[in-house]
Amino acid sequence: MHIKLTSGEKLEISEGESILRALKRQRVYLIASCGGKGICGKCRIRLIEGDWNIKSTGKLDPTDIKSGISLACQTFPRTEITIDIPKESRLVVGDKIALSKSGDLLDLLHSFKVDIFPLVRTIELELPPPTIDDNISDLERLKRSLEEKHLLGVRFPYPFVSSMSDLLRNAGWKVTIGYTVSNDIVYVKPSVANRERYGISVDIGTTTVVVYLLNLTSGQLVDVGSTYNSQMRYGDDVINRIVFATESGGLEELRESIVTDINSLIGLLRERHDIRREEIESAVIAGNTTMTHLFWGINPASIREDPYVPPVNIFPRWRAEFSRLEINALAPVYTFPCVASYVGGDIVSGVLASQMNRKKETAIFMDIGTNGEIVIGNNEWLVTAACSAGPCFEGSGIRHGMRATEGAIESLKIDPETFEPTWTVIGNGEPLGICGSGMIDAVSEMFLTGIIDQKGKFVEGTNTKRIRNGLEGPEFLIHSRNGSDIVLTQVDIENLLRAKAAMYAGVSLLLKELSLDLDVIQKVYIAGGFGNYIDVDKAIIMGMLPDLPKDKFSFIGNASITGAYLALLSKDLRREAGMIASKMTNIELSVSQGFMEEYLSALFLPHTDINQFPTVVKRLKKKKT
Amino acid sequence: MHIKLTSGEKLEISEGESILRALKRQRVYLIASCGGKGICGKCRIRLIEGDWNIKSTGKLDPTDIKSGISLACQTFPRTEITIDIPKESRLVVGDKIALSKSGDLLDLLHSFKVDIFPLVRTIELELPPPTIDDNISDLERLKRSLEEKHLLGVRFPYPFVSSMSDLLRNAGWKVTIGYTVSNDIVYVKPSVANRERYGISVDIGTTTVVVYLLNLTSGQLVDVGSTYNSQMRYGDDVINRIVFATESGGLEELRESIVTDINSLIGLLRERHDIRREEIESAVIAGNTTMTHLFWGINPASIREDPYVPPVNIFPRWRAEFSRLEINALAPVYTFPCVASYVGGDIVSGVLASQMNRKKETAIFMDIGTNGEIVIGNNEWLVTAACSAGPCFEGSGIRHGMRATEGAIESLKIDPETFEPTWTVIGNGEPLGICGSGMIDAVSEMFLTGIIDQKGKFVEGTNTKRIRNGLEGPEFLIHSRNGSDIVLTQVDIENLLRAKAAMYAGVSLLLKELSLDLDVIQKVYIAGGFGNYIDVDKAIIMGMLPDLPKDKFSFIGNASITGAYLALLSKDLRREAGMIASKMTNIELSVSQGFMEEYLSALFLPHTDINQFPTVVKRLKKKKT
Repeated sequence: MHIKLTSGEKLEISEGESILRALKRQRVYLIASCGGKGICGKCRIRLIEGDWNIKSTGKLDPTDIKSGISLACQTFPRTEITIDIPKESRLVVGDKIALSKSGDLLDLLHSFKVDIFPLVRTIELELPPPTIDDNISDLERLKRSLEEKHLLGVRFPYPFVSSMSDLLRNAGWKVTIGYTVSNDIVYVKPSVANRERYGISVDIGTTTVVVYLLNLTSGQLVDVGSTYNSQMRYGDDVINRIVFATESGGLEELRESIVTDINSLIGLLRERHDIRREEIESAVIAGNTTMTHLFWGINPASIREDPYVPPVNIFPRWRAEFSRLEINALAPVYTFPCVASYVGGDIVSGVLASQMNRKKETAIFMDIGTNGEIVIGNNEWLVTAACSAGPCFEGSGIRHGMRATEGAIESLKIDPETFEPTWTVIGNGEPLGICGSGMIDAVSEMFLTGIIDQKGKFVEGTNTKRIRNGLEGPEFLIHSRNGSDIVLTQVDIENLLRAKAAMYAGVSLLLKELSLDLDVIQKVYIAGGFGNYIDVDKAIIMGMLPDLPKDKFSFIGNASITGAYLALLSKDLRREAGMIASKMTNIELSVSQGFMEEYLSALFLPHTDINQFPTVVKRLKKKKT
Repeated sequence: MHIKLTSGEKLEISEGESILRALKRQRVYLIASCGGKGICGKCRIRLIEGDWNIKSTGKLDPTDIKSGISLACQTFPRTEITIDIPKESRLVVGDKIALSKSGDLLDLLHSFKVDIFPLVRTIELELPPPTIDDNISDLERLKRSLEEKHLLGVRFPYPFVSSMSDLLRNAGWKVTIGYTVSNDIVYVKPSVANRERYGISVDIGTTTVVVYLLNLTSGQLVDVGSTYNSQMRYGDDVINRIVFATESGGLEELRESIVTDINSLIGLLRERHDIRREEIESAVIAGNTTMTHLFWGINPASIREDPYVPPVNIFPRWRAEFSRLEINALAPVYTFPCVASYVGGDIVSGVLASQMNRKKETAIFMDIGTNGEIVIGNNEWLVTAACSAGPCFEGSGIRHGMRATEGAIESLKIDPETFEPTWTVIGNGEPLGICGSGMIDAVSEMFLTGIIDQKGKFVEGTNTKRIRNGLEGPEFLIHSRNGSDIVLTQVDIENLLRAKAAMYAGVSLLLKELSLDLDVIQKVYIAGGFGNYIDVDKAIIMGMLPDLPKDKFSFIGNASITGAYLALLSKDLRREAGMIASKMTNIELSVSQGFMEEYLSALFLPHTDINQFPTVVKRLKKKKT
């Protein structure tokens, strides 16, 4: 049997195979964060023609179902069928938004004033071919030539030697040798002028995964891939993942899950740019402590057991073959060092990208992801703490939430008279969902216009048809077209309040612990994958960010992947990352008595103690008059 | 269905499964050097009761067939059957003969005056358990403790780290750490007083494989396993193996074949002594250049291509996981260095065991195996050459040939009047076959008694019924009982003459090349697995050994495995092996014009130029008078 796509492709499908599976088998990748269990509702397709069985409709809206939307993982064709794959369901590779920042990345790299120095160094050799009089073995011949170039004590990994002889001969004994800082040989290649060299940087978030493909010579970002972390099927937060990892076979399952996500993206990137597996010669991994352990298949159990000690903070530079990454098997993999059980390599990477560790001024670094992490400090000291924020700003757990990619509503206004919303969409097309920055706008605007109250509850009697009763209680209709509604529900709003409360509580408690006043803070770096920018006013109105002057805020996006980009290209910045990690002092907020108190106070809009938000007080007063 | 063994065991067998396969599946290992193709004739069983199909009887004698002998690989039961497995068909583990030499090995080790210093060093650590105030990660904790003991720059292999945390915790943080000379961690174990430590030494011959299981603390030989190299199914000599290796999939097949042989032996040894896989913490491999490459899965093609350069002579110490040996995955594997394409690590190992490199006197070292290798030299210089002798002295290619294990006829006399043979058997039981030393005796005695002539041909008209016409022409009946005949055939004798001629030609040509007279030679070390000793007179009569006084000869048996034993136990002797390899000068006899001439002259008994054998001349004259 076949599936026809409206894009023109024709794919095969077997009896009893789900559409999701058949597409994946033929390299058409959909977002399926629950792994095809019908739970996450992300693998939406539209059925156009043919006959099929639908096992479950999951969380789909009745209107969506009416218009032919179905979950690919739950749909089994009975005949030849034709389907349409909406943009929002596709795994994103070649993200225009991300790629447009390529120049900024290079500028950033140059601003560090470091040389490009990848994980693999190279040396050109011209070996004399063996003769009856000079008949030492190939390996000794290579060793001799390396020693003549003063490269001593080289280690020859087994997989290298097992394929070395053919390579040397085919290259006519004129070769480029790649080797690591610890003198482990990575490859031997025919000497070729201007060969392109590739590497990948990976940010493993609890909710999302981003892969950068880099040109190691120019430092250019070649392409980007991103997707949801499909470990989500095992639980939203790191604690659930750790629990699952300690069950029989759980660790292996979680490891395989994240490695498959990354390898799918690598595969797509390689296909797009016609790059062979062996050509990707190094990798950098940045992730929180749990993600990093799961990626490497190391049991994270001790992370959540008193005294909260992870198996590894500083990861050796193992070879890709041990990571299962589908790149050159001998490629060195640099893993960002972790600081503590709940402050990981992604934060070290983010701080590196922010440069706060290089400056005199005291700054706050906030990473708003599934786990909220906060760093306060300057070029002399760095203190860090974690607070669990939840994945909603990354689009998960929000009915029409999505990551900040094309089609996401990234900013939003509501007319205070008519309650009609207006918005901007990333890429300027039809809106497909709403990303973090859009959510912040929406909640603040709904609060300012009185659609929701200080507790985030819908106010009864608001004069608009946009408030209606949905599957999960009241909801606000943002956009409707072709029966494809985008709404923000009561449940969504509650999730967002919990997330912002955790972040804000973290910041205020950490300042308290350090006996620092807010006005000492010269800069606030906001990191996270929630959008291209946040409207600071709105985020302050929501009570997510502290009430500071607008010019003190700096949005640095996904700082973890930016740091991973930098580390792949520079030896000095890898060293700097190590210094950042060793400098950071971790404070366990979760064991602090005050945290729950601060959190409960922050669950309001903007806060129970309104005096912490003087500009919001002013604004609300102005509105009333 | 079931197979009953006369020993009492009852095993399962499936429809259409050969007996060989069923036995192997249930860990009853037979010798099957052809891998179950019905060619080698070694997996003989006796069918007692039941009904069966026999696909082929291969080279079995009609008398054997009549008495119920069948090849296990060619026999397929139709009903429940009962069989007997003759001793000579069983894979040998726990060889009494070899084990009886255990004391000699220890004496030899002591004679070198070196300390026992295995490949893995150990250090005892008592780590402070983590607390909320001392909460560095497990790996950093371990690193810190190692650094306190002045062990810096340690490398933590991936498989070690992935299981480290549980081990540290289960051991209550009191552990023994094993690490290599290059500071790679091998294991962490709970600290236990007097733990036994194990390693294996392996001699990979073209025809036979020997595995020693050693106690690394005492230096004691714990047990021995040996079998035929089942690569034999792909050809008798290294050239055929190399050719096969260059065919598609051939290298992998040959590699898998030898690794399986070794792992079968290791498995049996582990079972017998109740040793877990992880407890075998190091290994030494000695083999000729081709065998070593095939073992490591490295393409040996260039070995037989002008200018005869092997991919590797000095093998890095890779971890067992890359060798596929079923021992501790991180165990270091020391591979004896090779000298040239046809002079390998087995010869370096043998020279090490002989100690000729430590002495002033000039000696000849002859390794009589499938490939004959010769070394001439002393503590100042060593010259070596190879000559292909063939596998007959190891029992292969000889109708009733067998290795020098229990049941082998190891010496033989023939009465010059009655032509009745008498013999001694290893282990003093019923003879099962004839080993190398027995063959030498047999050929010499048949020559002395006039049964065969100077060309090795049976002389017509000899007055004895022991000479009869067999399947392959005339043959001499050595022993007959229960229809189980042991014979030496015309073909056997021709094979033996070719083997001895190659060895002798090698020695005389190498002496010529060095312009050395035979009387310069103070010592001749004879290595090989052909028997406990050779009757020197007989070997000289046969023209295999040069005509020197008896007291100059020293039989050192399988010197390659002895050297592997020494190297597993001593760092100094591993270094000495490296020095031997780099000191040896290889001379290519095969390219020398004179070789074929010398070889053809040596095909006679004892030699065309009888003057090279003055004592034989005397003896023959005495006989005539």
